[in-house]
Amino acid sequence: MSLALTARTEPGERLVALAETLAAEIAPHAAAHDRDGSYPHAGADRLAAAGYYAAPIPEHLGGMGASCLHDVVVGNSRLARADASLAIGVNMHMAALLNMVRMYERGAEKLAPALERIARDGVRMSAAVSEPGQDLTRPGTVATRTPDGWRIDGRKLFCTGSPAATVLYTSVSFAGEDGGERYGYAMVPADAAGVTVHGDWDALGMRASGSHSVTFDAVALPAAALRGGFPVGDADGYMSRNLNAGLFHAAASLGIAEAAQDQALQAARRSDDARSRALVAESAMDLSAARGALSRAAQLVDERREDIAALFAEAQAAKTFTNDAACRVVDRALTLTGGAGYRSGHPLARAYRDVRAGAFMHPLGANRAYDLVGRVALGADPAIH
Amino acid sequence: MSLALTARTEPGERLVALAETLAAEIAPHAAAHDRDGSYPHAGADRLAAAGYYAAPIPEHLGGMGASCLHDVVVGNSRLARADASLAIGVNMHMAALLNMVRMYERGAEKLAPALERIARDGVRMSAAVSEPGQDLTRPGTVATRTPDGWRIDGRKLFCTGSPAATVLYTSVSFAGEDGGERYGYAMVPADAAGVTVHGDWDALGMRASGSHSVTFDAVALPAAALRGGFPVGDADGYMSRNLNAGLFHAAASLGIAEAAQDQALQAARRSDDARSRALVAESAMDLSAARGALSRAAQLVDERREDIAALFAEAQAAKTFTNDAACRVVDRALTLTGGAGYRSGHPLARAYRDVRAGAFMHPLGANRAYDLVGRVALGADPAIH
Amino acid sequence: MSLALTARTEPGERLVALAETLAAEIAPHAAAHDRDGSYPHAGADRLAAAGYYAAPIPEHLGGMGASCLHDVVVGNSRLARADASLAIGVNMHMAALLNMVRMYERGAEKLAPALERIARDGVRMSAAVSEPGQDLTRPGTVATRTPDGWRIDGRKLFCTGSPAATVLYTSVSFAGEDGGERYGYAMVPADAAGVTVHGDWDALGMRASGSHSVTFDAVALPAAALRGGFPVGDADGYMSRNLNAGLFHAAASLGIAEAAQDQALQAARRSDDARSRALVAESAMDLSAARGALSRAAQLVDERREDIAALFAEAQAAKTFTNDAACRVVDRALTLTGGAGYRSGHPLARAYRDVRAGAFMHPLGANRAYDLVGRVALGADPAIH
Amino acid sequence: MSLALTARTEPGERLVALAETLAAEIAPHAAAHDRDGSYPHAGADRLAAAGYYAAPIPEHLGGMGASCLHDVVVGNSRLARADASLAIGVNMHMAALLNMVRMYERGAEKLAPALERIARDGVRMSAAVSEPGQDLTRPGTVATRTPDGWRIDGRKLFCTGSPAATVLYTSVSFAGEDGGERYGYAMVPADAAGVTVHGDWDALGMRASGSHSVTFDAVALPAAALRGGFPVGDADGYMSRNLNAGLFHAAASLGIAEAAQDQALQAARRSDDARSRALVAESAMDLSAARGALSRAAQLVDERREDIAALFAEAQAAKTFTNDAACRVVDRALTLTGGAGYRSGHPLARAYRDVRAGAFMHPLGANRAYDLVGRVALGADPAIH
Repeated sequence: MSLALTARTEPGERLVALAETLAAEIAPHAAAHDRDGSYPHAGADRLAAAGYYAAPIPEHLGGMGASCLHDVVVGNSRLARADASLAIGVNMHMAALLNMVRMYERGAEKLAPALERIARDGVRMSAAVSEPGQDLTRPGTVATRTPDGWRIDGRKLFCTGSPAATVLYTSVSFAGEDGGERYGYAMVPADAAGVTVHGDWDALGMRASGSHSVTFDAVALPAAALRGGFPVGDADGYMSRNLNAGLFHAAASLGIAEAAQDQALQAARRSDDARSRALVAESAMDLSAARGALSRAAQLVDERREDIAALFAEAQAAKTFTNDAACRVVDRALTLTGGAGYRSGHPLARAYRDVRAGAFMHPLGANRAYDLVGRVALGADPAIH
Repeated sequence: MSLALTARTEPGERLVALAETLAAEIAPHAAAHDRDGSYPHAGADRLAAAGYYAAPIPEHLGGMGASCLHDVVVGNSRLARADASLAIGVNMHMAALLNMVRMYERGAEKLAPALERIARDGVRMSAAVSEPGQDLTRPGTVATRTPDGWRIDGRKLFCTGSPAATVLYTSVSFAGEDGGERYGYAMVPADAAGVTVHGDWDALGMRASGSHSVTFDAVALPAAALRGGFPVGDADGYMSRNLNAGLFHAAASLGIAEAAQDQALQAARRSDDARSRALVAESAMDLSAARGALSRAAQLVDERREDIAALFAEAQAAKTFTNDAACRVVDRALTLTGGAGYRSGHPLARAYRDVRAGAFMHPLGANRAYDLVGRVALGADPAIH
Repeated sequence: MSLALTARTEPGERLVALAETLAAEIAPHAAAHDRDGSYPHAGADRLAAAGYYAAPIPEHLGGMGASCLHDVVVGNSRLARADASLAIGVNMHMAALLNMVRMYERGAEKLAPALERIARDGVRMSAAVSEPGQDLTRPGTVATRTPDGWRIDGRKLFCTGSPAATVLYTSVSFAGEDGGERYGYAMVPADAAGVTVHGDWDALGMRASGSHSVTFDAVALPAAALRGGFPVGDADGYMSRNLNAGLFHAAASLGIAEAAQDQALQAARRSDDARSRALVAESAMDLSAARGALSRAAQLVDERREDIAALFAEAQAAKTFTNDAACRVVDRALTLTGGAGYRSGHPLARAYRDVRAGAFMHPLGANRAYDLVGRVALGADPAIH
Repeated sequence: MSLALTARTEPGERLVALAETLAAEIAPHAAAHDRDGSYPHAGADRLAAAGYYAAPIPEHLGGMGASCLHDVVVGNSRLARADASLAIGVNMHMAALLNMVRMYERGAEKLAPALERIARDGVRMSAAVSEPGQDLTRPGTVATRTPDGWRIDGRKLFCTGSPAATVLYTSVSFAGEDGGERYGYAMVPADAAGVTVHGDWDALGMRASGSHSVTFDAVALPAAALRGGFPVGDADGYMSRNLNAGLFHAAASLGIAEAAQDQALQAARRSDDARSRALVAESAMDLSAARGALSRAAQLVDERREDIAALFAEAQAAKTFTNDAACRVVDRALTLTGGAGYRSGHPLARAYRDVRAGAFMHPLGANRAYDLVGRVALGADPAIH
């Protein structure tokens, strides 16, 4: 895969190299987990043992110091080449963790113990954010103050990676100190009383991702488990916390597409004719553009803080373009295999199903992303709600 | 145009700022030159007076020191927003000049006087490379040794910018010292005896670009006017000299597309409805991807020297993707104006004609680019001939 | 052009054969009229002399009896292969005339004299319907009752074919017998006092179509010159009068595309390689689909009277699909010529400009067509206004 | 589904009405058979009991007299709306049967007993034609003459509908009377000794189609079981026997797409916004074009006998366009459901997998179809081998 994306920092280089090693280990098991719809626990444990989940944490707090978003995105795209279902769970962990690391790097010293604990205890976070009939900036799941801290009640969907999570990173509405309603994130231990992970994920693709629904029924948390946040309805607050999520979704699509192109090249080499060449060329161009778009958006998010709406739109444009391009690449690869890829168990039959998930991954689903990007281009209100 | 490409170096920032100033000056005259098919001499003179043509040359040799390919590409995309016909002439000058600058930076001290002269004399080069029925690596135009130097004979097509050129940067075949046939570049003064610039460019678009054919009839040159080169038929030699050309072509397309999107946004703001928003969003995404692809390819060419075929393919992928994306952006903009843009003299009527030239610009025309990118992806011979 | 559309009736076969003969006569002059933006009067006169303008009129009233919409559409597509600018003027004449013929065939005997006159006097109608800032079902141009008949005041745009028209078929608002406001068509002699055909059409393409604006300044007409119509705002009334117009627009696009494919095949035969073959195959498929869509929609309009919204949507779908497909076919043809087609005066340089007009031709412009087709599919109000 | 395709003959109208009744009966069971990969025997039996398999046979021989290809194609598209896996088995039965009926109608009286038997005995044919590494015009499966008739040996792939077939319609090579090698079709009873239907179909989609591989191991047949045929390598012979197959493949895609659009409309009605409207409009246009292309190609095949290559190319163009358009329609529908359609068991999750099979269905797979259509357009040899 010549001229694939590479890391921009030294710790990032180590992270990407580690991702490639791990990818080789998890790849052979992906088909079986896809067939059964079972979560790849062994693979996730292998990543944990290698310190991958803690990689963005500073070295002195127990991680690898690979806190460059660009580089983590690149690393996760390598995992997705091997097992996209597993990768999208790691994505959501990294999206949450990088937000914390970024705040720490920008001065929030108080996050040091939490980061240290994540590294030491091998914490794996699953994002419990999506809800039925969702208002993006006002979670239906509620945190209520109790004498000892908080009580959480609600229901979440698409909690990717939940079977192996130790913590559910849960978006909630709660009453702020000043009485105003706020949007915050509660760190809910997956084994807390009142937490039920429903084993109900059964979908066209990403079958091994464990994207189950989760119920919180009077879950008791200590006061420190819920932090910060922003006023409900605050589009800027929402966008700044979700800047990187779209790029991680794109990383999954890119990895799937790169693996598919690899299959396509093998098939095209066997039947070297001009039409095969044209199809792999179109895919090579889509991959070039997707890599460029994703890499540039990640760098912009790494480097800039101002003009949050424009940055968020750029990330969403990169997500949407990469998702769409990846669908095209997989489709061409399937065509090039001439039917072999249509057989159950073939990597491309899986890729064809997995890659279509990108359009539905929040934030933002493809329909909303088009609307958001259009609005921001027009200088209008982003209409996040 | 938020999140447009920006320079990566300090001299590049000055170059881009200068390009934006100059763009504002030349823009008002573009429509008239397009209508008449006349060359924008005043605009080109303005660029020369401002030192734009010499910008990549080191400061101590009289330039601005803006030798980063990425940044020159960005600067020229700004010119193309205003007048694509003028910009593509500047492109070809810069492509040739940057090759010289890069060689100088990599140790070819002997190029210092030539670079100094270019800065001092306000040299403007027009590439005289294309030929009818062309073999890419073996020019039909021939340089023959004479007692005093060289004699040039041949015929070239599409010599963009030739009306204002002081030098025709002319690809020739010649016999090397060792008797082997070589591909080289002759610096032919535009006013040399035997040079005829035919005023025959009359096309659908890029009407003001002065892309005339040129005849060389026993043109006498001093020995120093022809330098270096590489064995005819040598694909690597060809690709290394033409790495940056595709990116400059892409810069023209990007500039046209950015200006068109600007028109589209004005139209869409008037008729704010969801379909308009969807169209501008699709174009915003195409622009994001094109910027990412172009920026990444330019950086790779700036930073790497190994694996020339992969680099050339990457540049050609960026060229092709950007050309195609620009066509789509212009087409959507035309749609959004609801007919107004179809009137003669409207910027979009011009953009619709201009943008389609990208596919025909060598190296490589779109058909060949698909073939090349496919071949390189497959690990096959690039088949440059 | 094997398996091109063919007539379904015997008089239609004669009309199509006549169209092919006439096409051969007008083709050689198209490039010159395009360059000058001059109206092809000689060609239009040749069509008139051959009885083409009167062909749909019953034989006993002086025509050829070729009243099958499908067949007239096919015939006009043949003219468009040769000179699209001339063809779109004939289209608008035929659209108006076929409405009259259809009403006559369905029992409106009173139209016999008018039809006879059209045949005998060589009437050529130009549709004066479009207006600035248009409400589709309520013309801004007004007919006011006078003691002797009517007085017409207003301004029209895009009166295609107006330089050679003897009658301007002009949409107007007027007060009905019962006082209600109505939408009607006034037959305005082109040489009536107060009619000014402004020679102001100057556009990207369709340059020889004479699509000038026209002013009506207190034009006096006899009572019989304005007939029938329907209540303003009545979507069904509007759609039933405009059922066939979209199909005629599609006929122009189809003819342009068929001629372009012919050019593409010539180019591809010279450079027989797999990519050329792939491009002509894609265009052949687009042409097959466009012919099928257009032919089926025309037959449905010929055969059915019920469910006017569904019929109108079907015709608009055929128009939009054919327009878009034709743009793709022309674009591929341009690519296949490898630059030759980009030269001024090349048939494909003209086709590239002409074919883009389809999206702007009312009824309906492409944006509105998408909205209409979507609404009708959803069972919603067609929102014609 | 207003303005869906309708039958062109009276018996065809009865067939289509019957198909719609049967579709309603089989639809509720499709999801379960898809999940299990089990063949819908009960549905196939229901079709048989209703006389659907015999419908094209003349009434006096026991059928419905619905021998118009166009109308059978329309009928089968209705079945595909309900259960595409079942429909594609019926397709292959009908393709073989219509070839026989057409020969009978054109004078081959000797086919009467065979047709009568098909009607009387409820014969269901499965096409055993595809082979690994296939030469289209020279089957690897061989029929050898024996004292009592024939002996068949070979291996076939993708024998759709084989679990419920009573006869395997098997392409073979055999020595003709004159010693020349011929391509013929053997009617092999599914329960003959030496026939093994391997239950090995396990694919991404069309999971209930029973497209198993079949082995023929010294299968003994009477002399009458193998008939006619054409010289191996004869492209015209091949194309004339396979004219209708591509249209049946297209019918399956059309049915899937129409059902998907129905789902899309339900989703879009709930969230009535302009983007949803735009997506359903694009799909409505694709459906209009696909219906037009398929209907016209079927009529051409029904009406013409000359110029077999052009007819075959037209049918393949209709197949390819309809397959591609159906993929787009299903994709948009999935988008419109906003994730609900991505759940296992949702009709669109099935449609997304099923619809992609069209490109792999012979004759011709999509890659070959592009090549064939391009060659025929260029007037070159169709290169069927």
